[in-house]
Amino acid sequence: MYESDARSFRDRRADLKISFRKIPGSICAPRGFKCASVFCDIKKLGTGKGSEKGRKDDLALIISDVPAVVAGMFTRNQVCAAPAKVSRQRAKKNFARAIVVNSGNANAATGSQGMRDAEAMTRLTADAVAAVYDPRKSKETALIERRYRRISATDVLVCSTGRIGVAMPMKNIERGIRACAPRIARSTSNARKVAEAIMTTDTRRKEIAVEFKIGKSTVRMGGICKGAGMIQPGMATMLAFITTDAVIDPASLNRALKIAVGQSFNRITVDGDMSTNDSVIVLANGLAKNSKSEIRNSKFQSALNFVCLELAKMIVRDGEGTSRFIALHVGGAPNDREAEIAARSIANSSLVRTSWCGGDPNWGRILCALGYSKASVDETKVDVGYAAPDKRKILFAFRHGRPTNVALKDLAKISSAPEFDLHIDLHLGRGAFTLYAADLTENYVMFNKGDVNDPTTLGG
Amino acid sequence: MYESDARSFRDRRADLKISFRKIPGSICAPRGFKCASVFCDIKKLGTGKGSEKGRKDDLALIISDVPAVVAGMFTRNQVCAAPAKVSRQRAKKNFARAIVVNSGNANAATGSQGMRDAEAMTRLTADAVAAVYDPRKSKETALIERRYRRISATDVLVCSTGRIGVAMPMKNIERGIRACAPRIARSTSNARKVAEAIMTTDTRRKEIAVEFKIGKSTVRMGGICKGAGMIQPGMATMLAFITTDAVIDPASLNRALKIAVGQSFNRITVDGDMSTNDSVIVLANGLAKNSKSEIRNSKFQSALNFVCLELAKMIVRDGEGTSRFIALHVGGAPNDREAEIAARSIANSSLVRTSWCGGDPNWGRILCALGYSKASVDETKVDVGYAAPDKRKILFAFRHGRPTNVALKDLAKISSAPEFDLHIDLHLGRGAFTLYAADLTENYVMFNKGDVNDPTTLGG
Repeated sequence: MYESDARSFRDRRADLKISFRKIPGSICAPRGFKCASVFCDIKKLGTGKGSEKGRKDDLALIISDVPAVVAGMFTRNQVCAAPAKVSRQRAKKNFARAIVVNSGNANAATGSQGMRDAEAMTRLTADAVAAVYDPRKSKETALIERRYRRISATDVLVCSTGRIGVAMPMKNIERGIRACAPRIARSTSNARKVAEAIMTTDTRRKEIAVEFKIGKSTVRMGGICKGAGMIQPGMATMLAFITTDAVIDPASLNRALKIAVGQSFNRITVDGDMSTNDSVIVLANGLAKNSKSEIRNSKFQSALNFVCLELAKMIVRDGEGTSRFIALHVGGAPNDREAEIAARSIANSSLVRTSWCGGDPNWGRILCALGYSKASVDETKVDVGYAAPDKRKILFAFRHGRPTNVALKDLAKISSAPEFDLHIDLHLGRGAFTLYAADLTENYVMFNKGDVNDPTTLGG
Repeated sequence: MYESDARSFRDRRADLKISFRKIPGSICAPRGFKCASVFCDIKKLGTGKGSEKGRKDDLALIISDVPAVVAGMFTRNQVCAAPAKVSRQRAKKNFARAIVVNSGNANAATGSQGMRDAEAMTRLTADAVAAVYDPRKSKETALIERRYRRISATDVLVCSTGRIGVAMPMKNIERGIRACAPRIARSTSNARKVAEAIMTTDTRRKEIAVEFKIGKSTVRMGGICKGAGMIQPGMATMLAFITTDAVIDPASLNRALKIAVGQSFNRITVDGDMSTNDSVIVLANGLAKNSKSEIRNSKFQSALNFVCLELAKMIVRDGEGTSRFIALHVGGAPNDREAEIAARSIANSSLVRTSWCGGDPNWGRILCALGYSKASVDETKVDVGYAAPDKRKILFAFRHGRPTNVALKDLAKISSAPEFDLHIDLHLGRGAFTLYAADLTENYVMFNKGDVNDPTTLGG
């Protein structure tokens, strides 16, 4: 009676099953990408004399040996950080060479000074890189020397994450960029340190790389991201950087990124807050030399979807203080948009999220959050079911508007696992949406509440 | 520079300053209202043998000696509890005699059985009251005996609060109603026990009564309410019952209630969740014998506004696990609706609310929540200021789109007090909205997460 086949609820994930394999190397896995990071004390915690023991790096550079096609998606928050504004403009040029990124200061709500600082960061990066780094010496670029040109400020994108409303410590930034440029290398350990340098409240670095064939060419794609709090992207989540050596034209890359972000970063929520700094940037430098016509098949899109979704899920699993990961499938809505509204209403409800924290199969709160959402709901038709991750067998707590006689302990067994699936069917249409969500814990509160006795934890 | 006069931000509260005085007696303060409560073990925790030591009552009756004009406002949640549906219908008749209310079970998401149970509760109440209670023996009604008529089921409204998705234990309910009816009396201690009987996770009872003059008549108004979690009314918050002996016609009472609720219960939020059971009901039995024409002046409205606002604030102050009460004034919006949207975005942000918990003047998170709201925001114009409760001196953290040089410790002194005011000016128009909000604490999470090892805390 209350068991069912979950297939009808499943997201359309068939396209993810195309063969590509995970490889090491993160953002340095694709040909022609190099990176480096340093500690330059952007939070001004210490003496400011370079990297201190135990302190993770806070400034990083990511470089492509040759001009790369760029696509970017940025926060829709009306209070938009200066670096996001600058990068949005630069991405419109379709080609870029480098990204400079820092943690510890978001350069948001900093007025016109913030804009000047963000632009200065790109200029400093171009100068420092040009002074020490000659891509003609790179093995991969030996054959395409003629494509090399001196890097300029407009070839550089900039991202910042950290405290809001504090002026960028530009002396430290300048010293950091100068120290960072000579370290640029294609190295797995560099990539690992860059993934750490962009972390703020993250507890672990988030990185991935895959390899796949396009025609006879082997194409690689790598990605890193950061984000743990202030996560409910309206556009893109926090910072994510994806590198690939695929040959692809700017219009196709933009279209592919939009699709991939829509299926990944835009389907997660930790605390319902959309940041001022959210940015996802992908650089495609063409060194894999696949034919442009072959990129049209779905393999590149599948790989980008996979990389984005894996990175997005890492963010939810590392959500501030979270202890449980929930894949929330809403189906049967009048349309996909209403399914999304219903899913977000559930996943952002404090009462639903605290019940998840306790492992409590509190479907009453789920119904309540469904009911006050702006999505169409007919309470006499709704199903609410629980399942182990990606399992077909659903235990229904509520079916066709009525509680089932399922044993609470059987539901609790599922809902108290570290990960589980929730299946909601509104039985009103064919609209569906999957949202990856997390619970609300005491640790989240403890983490975010600051401490009036410790001024470094307070303010913007 | 960053101090200012708060007058422009202030809510229009002038109408609350009309002279009425607080009196004891709660809902029994107005003439001709009586009540009683019993313990009938609706949660089925114990033996079910009547009131147990240390257990608060869980079922209550509120009766008017004579038919009273009734106005009610009910949840807009699409998943609407059966008692709210029944009471909404009954309130449309304009006259009522009694309210039966229970805690421990919400009778929500209970299908057609829930509707039958809610209707049965009104029938049982009418029968039990008719059997034992003769309003002709009441002093106040001696002169208006002719208005007396036998109470019928359709004269009774019903409210429930508690667990969702569990069938009402009708045997206990029936026993409770029968035991309760003979205890009906006009007594301050009965009123106090009724205020306790409707509590669920509330930590203290919420009651008030005022007295004022309409012409030469002395009019009284009393109110009780409950609510601590699942609080962001779209219509009315949890349960509130207001009694008055004013003479007033149904249309005027409905209009007055709508205005009062708009300025009180619809301006609070604890956790952003709108309940399935929210109900505000006011009964006006006319025993004060004021002239109907005189009710048109604003005194009755002022008193109702005051009673509703005081009750609403009690709910926020008693919010589950909350430690701070914030009056959030948003001004300068293009219109009042956008001011409300901006205020709710701020007050429902997990990151803003956790910073309030820590006493942290984290205005950066406030800007962020403003920015992702659907309200129009121009970040170059926004002011964010802090003030002690109802004080005119505002300390601005952010002014005209830029951080001020105010000392963080001065802001923290305000924001770490148990109550403070936040003043946001968008400088885009004349729209304003005040929202009464609370912080998000570890205790809220602990309180609501349930315990997989204790089945009584789990489920709907």
